[in-house]
Amino acid sequence: MFTVLTLFKEVYYMKNNYHKENLKENILILTVKIIKEEGYQSVSVRKIANHLDVSPTAIYRHYNSLEELFTQAIVSVSHEFTNLLKTSLKGCQISPTQEIATVGVCFVNYATTSKNEFDFLFLSNYSLKNVSLNHKSDYPLILFMDSIINQAIKENNFKYSKEILFNQLWCFIFGYAVLVSKKQIELNEELIDATVKSFLTR
Amino acid sequence: MFTVLTLFKEVYYMKNNYHKENLKENILILTVKIIKEEGYQSVSVRKIANHLDVSPTAIYRHYNSLEELFTQAIVSVSHEFTNLLKTSLKGCQISPTQEIATVGVCFVNYATTSKNEFDFLFLSNYSLKNVSLNHKSDYPLILFMDSIINQAIKENNFKYSKEILFNQLWCFIFGYAVLVSKKQIELNEELIDATVKSFLTR
Repeated sequence: MFTVLTLFKEVYYMKNNYHKENLKENILILTVKIIKEEGYQSVSVRKIANHLDVSPTAIYRHYNSLEELFTQAIVSVSHEFTNLLKTSLKGCQISPTQEIATVGVCFVNYATTSKNEFDFLFLSNYSLKNVSLNHKSDYPLILFMDSIINQAIKENNFKYSKEILFNQLWCFIFGYAVLVSKKQIELNEELIDATVKSFLTR
Repeated sequence: MFTVLTLFKEVYYMKNNYHKENLKENILILTVKIIKEEGYQSVSVRKIANHLDVSPTAIYRHYNSLEELFTQAIVSVSHEFTNLLKTSLKGCQISPTQEIATVGVCFVNYATTSKNEFDFLFLSNYSLKNVSLNHKSDYPLILFMDSIINQAIKENNFKYSKEILFNQLWCFIFGYAVLVSKKQIELNEELIDATVKSFLTR
């Protein structure tokens, strides 16, 4: 009896511990999955709890609120997106200015092919506030943009404010991406090329 | 009895006719009101019918679908918005290039102060598709933009494609407006000035 009870306790402990250790991660993985497949508006604590077969209270033990969960999901989705942008440059022998244009085209395409992720990252209430190169940020997308903009600034002997350049590029590419995804204008890669060049060579 | 019946018939006819004549207009006015106060997502045929004390069928007699009603509402709201933009230029002794920048600032402010109208005009499924100066359009906003862009092109001896210039301005100002309304960046009028100039003087 003693042995069986010990064994039972051990298994119970392992199962519980396993659950505890992975639940936080599993909540985040499932949240990102729902965001991608159905859109961030479809995520709810009840839905996550049902899917993972736990109580809503168990969810709140790991994330104080849906907002805290979304904040983690933003980091995760933007990390994936940054890797996609980096991949678009891999193996390309192009100038830093051309790199910005290539990333711009990739960004516009992402708004159409990954609409749910794009809406969550850039058009939801959970999007990063005050996007700026001046704020120290560990948002991987900003760090990546900062690094390619720095190289393009060197290449073009650009003498004006980096922050203004960043905002110009950011507003233009973001506006382009939203308008293409809403089918209000069509993607024209040469237009992106020409605009990036006009910002960098004044 | 004959006189009373005639009178009754006349009053009934007048009332009915009054209703008929104004219902189409009243449906549109109410739709625009709900869009402004609650957002376009709150509009439904049932809600309009309840407010106007008619049956949903009476609504469908004038508008085949909610989409047809929204298409009319887009014209109405964009007309008001265009008048607002025109007013922002009234009495200003400024150059055509400066006019574009002023309209740009007004546009960005509108996205914040009239968020519901902005979302309906530019971020909904009912927004005008394929916005372009090439397409003959009676969308008053496009006609107005076309006229001030033509003047700025003359002023700057601009030699490149008008369509490309329009898309550059449109994507930049639209992106700026959405990012400011989502509190992702702050409005900086000088940045809009500098960007409009950089597009026009190459």
